[in-house]
Amino acid sequence: MALIVQKYGGTSVGTTERIKECARRIARWKSLGHQLVVVPSAMSGETNRLLGLAQEISPNPAPRELDVVAATGEQVTIGLLSIALMEQGLKAKSYTGGQVKILTDSAHTKARILNIQDANLRADLDAGYVVVVAGFQGVDEQGDITTLGRGGSDTSAVALAAALKAHECQIYTDVDGVYTADPRLVPEARRLKTVTFEEMLEMASLGSKVLQIRSVEFAGKYKVRLRVLSSFDDVDNPGAGTLITFEEDDHMEEAIISGIAFTRDEAKITVMGVPDRPGIAYAILGPIGDANIEVDMIIQNTSVDGLTDFSFTVQRSEYKKAMDVLSHKVKTHIEAKEVRGDDRICKVSVVGVGMRSHAGIASKAFRTLAEEGINIQMISTSEIKISIVIDEKYLELAVRVLHKAFELDVEPA
Amino acid sequence: MALIVQKYGGTSVGTTERIKECARRIARWKSLGHQLVVVPSAMSGETNRLLGLAQEISPNPAPRELDVVAATGEQVTIGLLSIALMEQGLKAKSYTGGQVKILTDSAHTKARILNIQDANLRADLDAGYVVVVAGFQGVDEQGDITTLGRGGSDTSAVALAAALKAHECQIYTDVDGVYTADPRLVPEARRLKTVTFEEMLEMASLGSKVLQIRSVEFAGKYKVRLRVLSSFDDVDNPGAGTLITFEEDDHMEEAIISGIAFTRDEAKITVMGVPDRPGIAYAILGPIGDANIEVDMIIQNTSVDGLTDFSFTVQRSEYKKAMDVLSHKVKTHIEAKEVRGDDRICKVSVVGVGMRSHAGIASKAFRTLAEEGINIQMISTSEIKISIVIDEKYLELAVRVLHKAFELDVEPA
Repeated sequence: MALIVQKYGGTSVGTTERIKECARRIARWKSLGHQLVVVPSAMSGETNRLLGLAQEISPNPAPRELDVVAATGEQVTIGLLSIALMEQGLKAKSYTGGQVKILTDSAHTKARILNIQDANLRADLDAGYVVVVAGFQGVDEQGDITTLGRGGSDTSAVALAAALKAHECQIYTDVDGVYTADPRLVPEARRLKTVTFEEMLEMASLGSKVLQIRSVEFAGKYKVRLRVLSSFDDVDNPGAGTLITFEEDDHMEEAIISGIAFTRDEAKITVMGVPDRPGIAYAILGPIGDANIEVDMIIQNTSVDGLTDFSFTVQRSEYKKAMDVLSHKVKTHIEAKEVRGDDRICKVSVVGVGMRSHAGIASKAFRTLAEEGINIQMISTSEIKISIVIDEKYLELAVRVLHKAFELDVEPA
Repeated sequence: MALIVQKYGGTSVGTTERIKECARRIARWKSLGHQLVVVPSAMSGETNRLLGLAQEISPNPAPRELDVVAATGEQVTIGLLSIALMEQGLKAKSYTGGQVKILTDSAHTKARILNIQDANLRADLDAGYVVVVAGFQGVDEQGDITTLGRGGSDTSAVALAAALKAHECQIYTDVDGVYTADPRLVPEARRLKTVTFEEMLEMASLGSKVLQIRSVEFAGKYKVRLRVLSSFDDVDNPGAGTLITFEEDDHMEEAIISGIAFTRDEAKITVMGVPDRPGIAYAILGPIGDANIEVDMIIQNTSVDGLTDFSFTVQRSEYKKAMDVLSHKVKTHIEAKEVRGDDRICKVSVVGVGMRSHAGIASKAFRTLAEEGINIQMISTSEIKISIVIDEKYLELAVRVLHKAFELDVEPA
């Protein structure tokens, strides 16, 4: 018997039929003798509907009241899911974030969990209840309702797992695990049985949006075993999903590379002929940040003759705005020669903890792309990742050839 | 400067446009220097949608969880209305029932208010906030969410007015007051400037469903000045609605009769030739109550030769079920001769506190109907009401001629 926290995403509870299906899934786990805490999201589309109502009333609604409105989405699903569980013959009880209580700071719409009171939950679990806790929400010191921001239900689940010292936190979603690449692009892509926490972080930030990045960080901090599973596979014969492990765990798979990730819809901007002097990076990126534009990769190479080229990437939708900021406010101020941009690029990344101890991964990746005639425009590397910016028309090809080159289609021994 | 509690019904906050309109109305009251506590219902249709979801999952959902789901309807509107009030330049703050807190018993889906903690509300009012409190909901001793049942927002508003010793509790709805008769039936019907609490009780139970009957009782118990107003009239030139007064108040209008009420869709059942002995009424109505059928009028006349006829009325939708219960379970058991029914009847009532001290009201009503050839099937009277059961085809005619006979179309001097 183990204590398991299960989180069900919006599509998993998107209709009353889906909610009944979740209840059957939970009943199966319960019948195996486990104690269960279940954290559902709002029914898919509901949070957007609620925020849309607020937006109709004010372009800039007060965050405290926005949270009051948004938190109802999850409150509806905890009630409905509890009812569905009782229909399965189980004892079930719902808790709002405030009822638990999940104490957060007062940063409305993006609050952080400070503490979880687990006494009532434990008593209910010991009395045989399935405990259903609203994700995404908490209360602050004043008793005001707070929400954790988009994807906050993942964080709620992980935080509950940490507080209750759960055996495992299972994240149910519409995919059945983490893959070596997007299976829609690479039919040979393989589901990973395990992936390290750091790899998962890189994958999550690179468009393999299986898990909310904050929840993965949270799991890492509190050493919560996280498993990604599908809520759409056969209830009686479920898959094992992907387990996210930590450094100290034994690696079940000793692969060098765990996957190929990518981000579409990127744009790159290069400020050319920038005087290489202190404060220049801030002079360029400060105004960009002030304009609320999020920057992804940042690259500055060694200077030649006191001049350097400074490049960064942004989401394509922010490209025009970023170019405007640079052309009008920054260029003359920093005496740059020219600002160039390209909004038809994408980013492909090779991710794997194994590359730390294996030389030649980068060169293998570069050679693979060169053999296909794919020109590399920018390169950025971290300890466990090589990111490469290329023309967007080569995205699919690049992912496929890299996947094959690193033998990700082959199940490790 | 006065403290005013305003309740806005479901149609009054049915869309984001309507919510903005409510905010403008509240802003006007605020500009007159009043302190305001506002109690909105759920957006019209929302409570039914939520209960419908629960029903899709279980034919018999657990009341505790049903309340968790249903309470979200009002939580959405308090947030949205607070946002709309801030758009009007006001300070506003929302409270759920639990946040106030409005303490109730644990009778889920029909809880009763036990106590209201008003310290936080008072502090906010003194600080210049418009306080927006979710109607229909509270929490019990365990911190579980409860709801007060249909129309419970009226009760919430009255209870808040009582707790805060408000000057007045204003119920905003889609009619602009209480009329001498339904204006759709009687074009000459007049809006009453005042109506007594008891008259209102009789009107409310007779289909003039302007106010929830429990809230009127509550107002009577705590001597809360209640006013019914329209949320659809001109914001800058609002009507005065109808004030519900209590015995000790001065009557501004000294009318004998305040209105003609009616109930459609009734059915009557008569158990004939019943032995007139103790326990017989219970023997008949006990099984009816056990079958969850609500009984309205009950009439038993003096017996002749030890036998009497026992009649009662039920809603037409319950008629068949009631007849079945009587025919199969009751008739032989109590040795009645026959059970007769008629599901094509209606009830018309003449209501007014003035009839206590004025003889001849009943006979005037009977004569008026007789002159139109309307046969009276049953009569029941209380101190301030005469109810008459007639063939449903005479409903409109009866209401109109009674309205005219008692000169309700004439504004009192």
